Amino acid sequence: MTDSITRLSTSQSDFDSALASLLAWDDSVDHQVNESVRHILHEVKTRGDAAVLEFTGKFDRLSVASMAELELSEVRLQEALARIPEDQRVALEQAAARVRDYHERQNQASWRYEDEDGTVLGQKVTPLDRAGLYVPGGKAAYPSSVLMNAIPAKVAGVAEVVMVVPTPDGVVNDMVLAAAAIAGVDRVFTIGGAQAVAALAYGTETVPAVDKIVGPGNIYVATAKREVFGVVGIDMIAGPSEILVICDGNTNPDWIAMDLFSQAEHDEQAQSILVSPDGAFLDAVEASIAKLLPTMEREEIIRASLAGRGALIQVADLKEAAQVSNRIAPEHLELSVEDPEAMLGDIRHAGAIFMGRYTAEALGDYCAGPNHVLPTSGTARFSSPLGVYDFQKRSSLIGFSASGADRMGRVASVLARGEGLTAHARSAEYRINE
Amino acid sequence: MTDSITRLSTSQSDFDSALASLLAWDDSVDHQVNESVRHILHEVKTRGDAAVLEFTGKFDRLSVASMAELELSEVRLQEALARIPEDQRVALEQAAARVRDYHERQNQASWRYEDEDGTVLGQKVTPLDRAGLYVPGGKAAYPSSVLMNAIPAKVAGVAEVVMVVPTPDGVVNDMVLAAAAIAGVDRVFTIGGAQAVAALAYGTETVPAVDKIVGPGNIYVATAKREVFGVVGIDMIAGPSEILVICDGNTNPDWIAMDLFSQAEHDEQAQSILVSPDGAFLDAVEASIAKLLPTMEREEIIRASLAGRGALIQVADLKEAAQVSNRIAPEHLELSVEDPEAMLGDIRHAGAIFMGRYTAEALGDYCAGPNHVLPTSGTARFSSPLGVYDFQKRSSLIGFSASGADRMGRVASVLARGEGLTAHARSAEYRINE
Repeated sequence: MTDSITRLSTSQSDFDSALASLLAWDDSVDHQVNESVRHILHEVKTRGDAAVLEFTGKFDRLSVASMAELELSEVRLQEALARIPEDQRVALEQAAARVRDYHERQNQASWRYEDEDGTVLGQKVTPLDRAGLYVPGGKAAYPSSVLMNAIPAKVAGVAEVVMVVPTPDGVVNDMVLAAAAIAGVDRVFTIGGAQAVAALAYGTETVPAVDKIVGPGNIYVATAKREVFGVVGIDMIAGPSEILVICDGNTNPDWIAMDLFSQAEHDEQAQSILVSPDGAFLDAVEASIAKLLPTMEREEIIRASLAGRGALIQVADLKEAAQVSNRIAPEHLELSVEDPEAMLGDIRHAGAIFMGRYTAEALGDYCAGPNHVLPTSGTARFSSPLGVYDFQKRSSLIGFSASGADRMGRVASVLARGEGLTAHARSAEYRINE
Repeated sequence: MTDSITRLSTSQSDFDSALASLLAWDDSVDHQVNESVRHILHEVKTRGDAAVLEFTGKFDRLSVASMAELELSEVRLQEALARIPEDQRVALEQAAARVRDYHERQNQASWRYEDEDGTVLGQKVTPLDRAGLYVPGGKAAYPSSVLMNAIPAKVAGVAEVVMVVPTPDGVVNDMVLAAAAIAGVDRVFTIGGAQAVAALAYGTETVPAVDKIVGPGNIYVATAKREVFGVVGIDMIAGPSEILVICDGNTNPDWIAMDLFSQAEHDEQAQSILVSPDGAFLDAVEASIAKLLPTMEREEIIRASLAGRGALIQVADLKEAAQVSNRIAPEHLELSVEDPEAMLGDIRHAGAIFMGRYTAEALGDYCAGPNHVLPTSGTARFSSPLGVYDFQKRSSLIGFSASGADRMGRVASVLARGEGLTAHARSAEYRINE
């Protein structure tokens, strides 16, 4: 047995408060980070390329004469694609094809209708002109994230996808560049941190200003994205990754232990929770955890994550398991049960739902098709996976016929005068037939 | 002629910079406001109803013994509906019916598909459980905003819509309450400011915590919404309202002047811009402005808005007018031209597009059907009108068959090992057939 994964039961009197403290996550911003980020944003906004070059020299220890040296050509991306091992290239291409296929179904069409007096109403859908994709460099450089962020943008019809990826000390990750080639990224700059976010938001002499910035990053990147929100759109600010597994007790406990590990290995703040009505099964998974942990490459991270934020929770039945899940609104929800379809109606909030014993969450991270950028920290209560809809926007269409303007102008006039907005009223009244 | 509305022409050499300074809008946050809002949020979060009562006493000069006295019953809303003038009640009901009809077409359906090996992929759409609606009190109490914010939530299927509206000195606006009754708002509290936002975000003993807060408010409300973002969802942070009118020169100049006024009367920061290839028409509209201004109830606000932020811009042709419009990405765009459909393809960014001479923007504010909550300050480049989609969220569905898990597990394994995430790899590999 591992000494230290929290055990809870919904039957205990303090369950609600125990669960609340397990889920508590301090995302308060660091004053020092804030000040530093504001300084970087201001410098890049006012001094452009020169400031980006300075910060890149300072933080990534890259000394170059001009921004042009920090842009990677299409040829360079294709070289990376040719250089990576065959099995990785094929796997990236297979994953990209499935991700593209799924996301094409999210494409929204414009629509319109005409009412009885000839007035036209509708909604016009257009892609963003340009999107920026932040890709972390160094250890946590994930080619899968390039696919998951760039493909929805291209499916949406975004004309230009601009990727930034820091290359500290000049270390370039070929698999990341290969993924960019496969996903159809249009331009790549080897810059990172708040300076890259600033360059994408404000534009510089070399880096084009984008309309929205997506992709994960460290605290400096997240803080910079929060600051530039409004100038550009941003995707969500992600918290630590989480998984909630609901199991009826009949899945191999080793499988479940490994599913919990697959979340825990991300970092020490990641959260892995198992919920089951079967107490003996929770014991069995705890034993599997103890048995498998020493065999893991990222053992220390997993151990710290499980000890600090993991839990095994016993519930009365699967109905109650769904209630606990709705309370948590998990990023990833595995329904490792005999009949996942039967549970689906009870699940109100989750980023992605993995149905049945064969659906390891890891499949969704790479190649199932749906996006792996998902709402964390309970935000699945009100937000959605990254999707094609994040790279499209809508414009309302209104075209009144003369008789429609006459009829509805009378309504608008009454309401505008009721609100004391008489220019509104008179503007509508001009279109009323005398 | 009015002495002071800016005239620009795309033919002038400094047009780009002149346009940029016209559009510049300082939305930097006030440090004092920030501190005050953080204090209020903290107090309400930790002390609940007691803090809300204190702040309401202080800011709205309402002294009551308990939060219960600050809740308005359904009976009270129905009384308001019965009390307002007949023409206002009918107009509200007609507007609500059209808004409901339009928004029902935005409803998104869940979907799923099965691939060749029996793997199921899809997207499940669910409404938010509970939405909060902020309605300003006092002078700027707009019943139309109640309809525009509450109806999409109810159409989306939100079970409980909680409205807050401050009633300084106990002054209640019956038309606002009548609109709440018509829109189907579930609960109404007469609280406002940052304390109302905090109550909705964190919940108190009496006010239920919501999942998303929408609706306009003053700087304290906007700052509080920005602060609680992440705990709950929020709609956009609105800047000043804007209209861009493109006219071919053949609309009655009085109509166009009044359309510009209808935006300018909102407040002195509102922005009204007319673009036309016809210089003589710009002169005629300027004359109409001078003639009509003295007849307006809100003359001083309109005059200040037009002088400070308005402009008449001459362009070479309608093609160039569309380019100027795309550069601005206006909240409201009026195409007051002979063939608006012909221009539509050139328009890439706008919150709402009003097509043809009869389609006064004011009609869209009240009763056309589409929402009047629209992206401001150029954010139409990446965001959309408030809609049913803002009150729904998506969960990805993934259900692998045994053979699908075998096939795609191999792909996931290669990619996970390429990223150094071996627990991910082993979790997928457990589902591969030996």
